[in-house]
Amino acid sequence: MIYVVGTGPGNEQYMTQEALEAIEKCDIIVGYKTYIKLIKHLLVDKKIVENGMRQEKERCLEALELSSQGKKVALISGGDSGIYGMAGLILELNSKREVAEEVKIVQGVSSSISAASVLGAPLMHDFCQISLSDLMTPWSIIEKRIKLASDADFVICIYNPRSKGRSEHLKMAFEIMSQYKSLDTPVGIVKNAGRDNQEIYISNIRDMDYEICDMSTMVIVGNKKSYIDNGKIITPRGYNI
Amino acid sequence: MIYVVGTGPGNEQYMTQEALEAIEKCDIIVGYKTYIKLIKHLLVDKKIVENGMRQEKERCLEALELSSQGKKVALISGGDSGIYGMAGLILELNSKREVAEEVKIVQGVSSSISAASVLGAPLMHDFCQISLSDLMTPWSIIEKRIKLASDADFVICIYNPRSKGRSEHLKMAFEIMSQYKSLDTPVGIVKNAGRDNQEIYISNIRDMDYEICDMSTMVIVGNKKSYIDNGKIITPRGYNI
Repeated sequence: MIYVVGTGPGNEQYMTQEALEAIEKCDIIVGYKTYIKLIKHLLVDKKIVENGMRQEKERCLEALELSSQGKKVALISGGDSGIYGMAGLILELNSKREVAEEVKIVQGVSSSISAASVLGAPLMHDFCQISLSDLMTPWSIIEKRIKLASDADFVICIYNPRSKGRSEHLKMAFEIMSQYKSLDTPVGIVKNAGRDNQEIYISNIRDMDYEICDMSTMVIVGNKKSYIDNGKIITPRGYNI
Repeated sequence: MIYVVGTGPGNEQYMTQEALEAIEKCDIIVGYKTYIKLIKHLLVDKKIVENGMRQEKERCLEALELSSQGKKVALISGGDSGIYGMAGLILELNSKREVAEEVKIVQGVSSSISAASVLGAPLMHDFCQISLSDLMTPWSIIEKRIKLASDADFVICIYNPRSKGRSEHLKMAFEIMSQYKSLDTPVGIVKNAGRDNQEIYISNIRDMDYEICDMSTMVIVGNKKSYIDNGKIITPRGYNI
């Protein structure tokens, strides 16, 4: 039995009861070492199997193997496991097995929700999430999505905005957005949302600072009606007030 | 002091620790009666101020008034309060006050996350959320968003798909989507996600049954790569498996 557990920002305060209970009842915890570290205090007496970045497949195969031996396994994912997390890969690999293991996806708070909660209420209207990582998605598709999402006036949450190997993609994304969105459009930047080392920046498209963004950063760009008030980004739902 | 608390599906199992603690420390609970009812067992000894649909503004003004009298108030929202919830309206109204109240947005699990978790892993790649309610958003904007989101091959989460007064909008949305997405595209329909009376349907664009959808239903439409396996919808992230 495998529970795929999203730990939200990684602080138990933001985890669901279901996630905490799933970890409690498992013998073995499998996950990316950075996420494991954040919840280590919850894992006393558990067997821990951790590995590094880009070893997602190995992690899932290990979880499936342990489960087939009768173990209860918690496969740890940051944020919500169903959003750019481990839920998809474990189900894909499970479907290729001769005998499928039982897999339960445990709900968690996504990083866009964590970031939005400290920025104010930027996601109050239709929004989309786009990952700028072109490791597994061609950049042409990512560009097209940014263009059409901007034209549609969605609020846009940008995942994986900038890494050492991709220093220019975020700037390119902003150049596309600025063809459709006003340069005054509010932009919220949250590094390490919900963690002890959280940093919050409120800006706009014109004054965007790409340098402060890394892979632990969420960037949220408003729609035509978003505004900044008292240090918070608000996207009105449309109430007559 | 006002805590804006998203209760997720309304079952404490899916609420965050932070949400449960916020309710615990408040004297007064303000909310839409349907959401209050779902968590009534958590509200023993609390003063409850509840009202009906479309009374969102009155609810927020009441919460602000009570807070200005020195009360600790929990303003309840379904799902995550920052997604089509009460977070935006309370901040908007608060910004108009001479003396602003302290408002804290408490993270919750959104209905798209709850629905996705029981469907499999449909949100594993870029997705968007669109509400079909044209009460506060012109239908022309909603139509444009559906069209561009389909062209961009986003997974699409449809909020508020169908009400008594809007029986045809969902069908119209599917007609637009079918111009860009294959008729075989997986569609997941979840009524009352995460609640005792949850219902799950797995279908596709061709066989979509509009009649089963209501305002408590989440409809998730896949992208070009989404597929159905063993009763689950999987949208691959792109791993080589």
